[in-house]
Amino acid sequence: MNFELNILGCGSAKPTRRHQPSAQILNVRGKYFMIDCGEGAQTQMQMMGLSMANVGHIFISHNHGDHVFGLPGLIGTMDLLGRTAELHIHGPQQVGQLIDFLLRTYYADITYRVIFHPVDPSLHALVYEDRSITVHSIPLEHRVPSVGYLFREKPLLPHIRREMIDAFQIPFSQINNIKAGASWTTEDGTVIPHERLTTPAAPPRSYAYCSDTVYLPQLREILHGVTLLYHEATYLHERALRAEQTRHSTAIQAAMQARDAEVGQLCIGHFSATVKDESLLLQEAQSIFPNTVLAREGLVISI
Amino acid sequence: MNFELNILGCGSAKPTRRHQPSAQILNVRGKYFMIDCGEGAQTQMQMMGLSMANVGHIFISHNHGDHVFGLPGLIGTMDLLGRTAELHIHGPQQVGQLIDFLLRTYYADITYRVIFHPVDPSLHALVYEDRSITVHSIPLEHRVPSVGYLFREKPLLPHIRREMIDAFQIPFSQINNIKAGASWTTEDGTVIPHERLTTPAAPPRSYAYCSDTVYLPQLREILHGVTLLYHEATYLHERALRAEQTRHSTAIQAAMQARDAEVGQLCIGHFSATVKDESLLLQEAQSIFPNTVLAREGLVISI
Repeated sequence: MNFELNILGCGSAKPTRRHQPSAQILNVRGKYFMIDCGEGAQTQMQMMGLSMANVGHIFISHNHGDHVFGLPGLIGTMDLLGRTAELHIHGPQQVGQLIDFLLRTYYADITYRVIFHPVDPSLHALVYEDRSITVHSIPLEHRVPSVGYLFREKPLLPHIRREMIDAFQIPFSQINNIKAGASWTTEDGTVIPHERLTTPAAPPRSYAYCSDTVYLPQLREILHGVTLLYHEATYLHERALRAEQTRHSTAIQAAMQARDAEVGQLCIGHFSATVKDESLLLQEAQSIFPNTVLAREGLVISI
Repeated sequence: MNFELNILGCGSAKPTRRHQPSAQILNVRGKYFMIDCGEGAQTQMQMMGLSMANVGHIFISHNHGDHVFGLPGLIGTMDLLGRTAELHIHGPQQVGQLIDFLLRTYYADITYRVIFHPVDPSLHALVYEDRSITVHSIPLEHRVPSVGYLFREKPLLPHIRREMIDAFQIPFSQINNIKAGASWTTEDGTVIPHERLTTPAAPPRSYAYCSDTVYLPQLREILHGVTLLYHEATYLHERALRAEQTRHSTAIQAAMQARDAEVGQLCIGHFSATVKDESLLLQEAQSIFPNTVLAREGLVISI
C-alpha cells in the first residue's frame, strides 16, 4: 500500500533556477497530505500528475513566505475545480492570519470550507488521526515558531493463512477475531495459537519532516527509528556559523540527527541558493549517515 | 532602443501544465515595468534572465489571484536581494489591501519601501510619467474593478545632420536649440530651416495591455494606432456567451478591437484552461486581424 513522499519543492527562501520553495505531498493510500506550500506548489502538483482533489489536510511548518505563499493560489484553484470537501490546514497560529485574510478578501464565496487548526509548536502532540495514520507535531526551533510533523502508519492486522483456516475448518465469522489476536480451539480442545493461523503484517512505516530548524539533538527520541526522515540541510559545514545565526541546519547536522535517531533513510533539502553544487551537501551528509539522498523537484520516495 | 515585451505568463485562473498566470515585463531602455504578477512570476523572470532589481513599478490590472499572487513572494525576494530602491505598485484600490496585509504581516522589517498608488479604473488618466514614457490607465470592465495600461514613448528629438552643422559652421551651443525645433540664420541672413538641419526621430512606440475585460468597442479611440496591443482572448467564439457571463473576451473580439483601433500588431493571451488547442484562437483572431500572435511563456516581442 502506498506510503510515498513526493517532493514538489526543496529550495529555500531565495529562489533559484534549480529549485522551487518547500512543498511536499505524502501519499498515504491515495490520501494526500500536503506538507508546506511554497509558491508554485499547485503547478508542481500538476507537473507530477497529483490531483488537488486528493488533498484533505495541509500541514504547515512555519509562517515564512517560502513555506506558505502557494496557499493563496491553491485555495482558489480548488474552488475553481468545484471542490466541496472541507480543507483542513494545520500550522502555528501565525499561519491563521494568512488564511483569515484570504478567506475574508478573496474567498468569501468559495464552494467549500477551509478550516484552520492551530498547532502548538512547543509540543510533541497528536495533531491528526484517521483509520490508517497518526500525525504528531515535532517541536522545532527557527527564527519564528516552527513545527515538524511525524506521520506514522497504524499497525496493520496480520494476514490470515488461508490454508490453516481450511485445515482446521474455522468458520468465516471467526476470521476477524483471529486477525485481532484470538487463538482457535478445535472440537477436541486443542488450542491452535494465533501465530500459526496468521503471518505478521508489514511493520508500520513512518515519515518525519523537520524544516526549518536548527540542529536539535533532543529530537533523537521523537525521531527514533522513523523509516524516512526529511531534514533541512540549508548549508554546507563551512557555513555552520551562518546556519546557527539564521536558525538553520547543515548537512552534517541533518546526518547526525539521522544517525543518532537510527532512522532508516535520510532525505536532505531546503538548499540555500548559495550552495551551487548540492553533491557536496550529499557527500558531507553521507560521511556521517550513508543512506542519505538529495531531495529534488519531482522526486518520489516509496517509504 | 529597447521597447520590448516579455511574457512571463499568459494563462487564466485555472492553472494548466501549459501556462503560468498573467505576468509581463515591459522593458523600456532597461527599465522594467511589470504588468500583473501572477503566482510564479519571479520564477519566470529568473528563467528568462530578467533581473528583479530593474523593476521599479508594477501595474496591476485587478485584484484576482491569478494577477496578484506572485506579489507576496516577489516582495520578499527583492528584500533578500538587498533592495534599497522604492518599489511602486499601481492598481485598483482593492489591491492595496493585499499590499497592506503583506507589509504588516510578513514585511514589517524589509530593507526598502513599497508604495501603493491606487488607480481609478473608471478613468483614462495619466498614472505614471518619466523622461521617456507616459503610462495611462484604460478603463476595462470585468467582474471586479479592472484597468488596462497604455505605455507611450515620448516623442524623441530629431537627429542632427552632422554634415549640415559642419557646412554652416553652426556652433555646438546651438545644437540643442536646433534639436528642439529652431532654424539657423547664417551671417548673410539666410535662414536654414530646421528640417534641413535634422532627420526625424523614429516615431514613438506604444503598448497597450487589456486584461481582464469584456469586449469594449468604446476603447477604439484610446487604443487607436498603438504599436502593440495585448488583449485577453480567454475563449473561442463558440463560447461567446460564457465570455459575456464571466466578463471576458473571445479571440474574435480581441481581433475586432485591434482592427477597429488600427493597431500595428495584436498579441492575444489569458487563455482559458478549457481551450486545448490555442491555434484555433489564433485562427479566429487572424480571420479578423491578420497581424496577430499567440502569447506564450518566454515570448519576447520587440515593439
